Amino acid sequence: MAKLHWEDLEPGAVTVYGLRLVTREEIVAFAAEFDPQPMHLDEAAATATLLGGLGASGWHICSLLMRMMADGFILNSTSMGAPGVDEVTWHRPLRPGTRIRLRATVLETRPSGSRPAVGLAKFKFEMIDEADAVVMTQVNTMMLGRREPGGRP
Amino acid sequence: MAKLHWEDLEPGAVTVYGLRLVTREEIVAFAAEFDPQPMHLDEAAATATLLGGLGASGWHICSLLMRMMADGFILNSTSMGAPGVDEVTWHRPLRPGTRIRLRATVLETRPSGSRPAVGLAKFKFEMIDEADAVVMTQVNTMMLGRREPGGRP
Repeated sequence: MAKLHWEDLEPGAVTVYGLRLVTREEIVAFAAEFDPQPMHLDEAAATATLLGGLGASGWHICSLLMRMMADGFILNSTSMGAPGVDEVTWHRPLRPGTRIRLRATVLETRPSGSRPAVGLAKFKFEMIDEADAVVMTQVNTMMLGRREPGGRP
Repeated sequence: MAKLHWEDLEPGAVTVYGLRLVTREEIVAFAAEFDPQPMHLDEAAATATLLGGLGASGWHICSLLMRMMADGFILNSTSMGAPGVDEVTWHRPLRPGTRIRLRATVLETRPSGSRPAVGLAKFKFEMIDEADAVVMTQVNTMMLGRREPGGRP
């Protein structure tokens, strides 16, 4: 498959990547290392929390989304990364046994003001479950290499 | 130490937590699992990227910050988590061998409009290196239990 360049991104385009099964083991392993709060570690303790049961750390959700982005398109693209994230919203718990997908929507694209070889693309990324319910929304702006530096798409 | 409640958070208060040494091994292990881009996996490949050398995944940086927050105060608090993140900015690469700390600034606090037992606190969290250079800034709003539900602090 041809490498994805900035020019290939059409505002409004929606692509879905995945599926990935999220296991209890990986939820607990991530939490033990990075976010050892009761709602991410133990079913009984989690029941008394706002999650209402065991659910993945929000940062685990972000990290899983990153992996789906990498496998879905970034590793076969001219991506140069992102300077940050505009917005992260965790809408519902990510439970063990959920099959997740990534839905990527191109919100807008523009050339970099300072670097002719670089274009910017603002994305909305959603993690969705098997019922298409949105687990997390993320908005961020990526830098990608251009096929024709300085040209118009 | 007494459990931290919402009333204990003073707008303007700054607390520093840490130190933690970040190793090459953990940078590469995280990247292999969640963010297998060349700049997080391999020194030679990383040199040609915007990072200019091996650096941790931005999501690894967020996850390390989460762990420092948990150990620093969350696990001994009435925290109920956060619905999302207002802002994440990665300012500079996090290199292997860096000793990091967490600087937490309370930006504002307010009672929850709907739940008398809950207060909200907006924080700026910064990951800083041994030279006090800021690696990442994060702004987010946490929910915490109140010592006196419905009362004023």
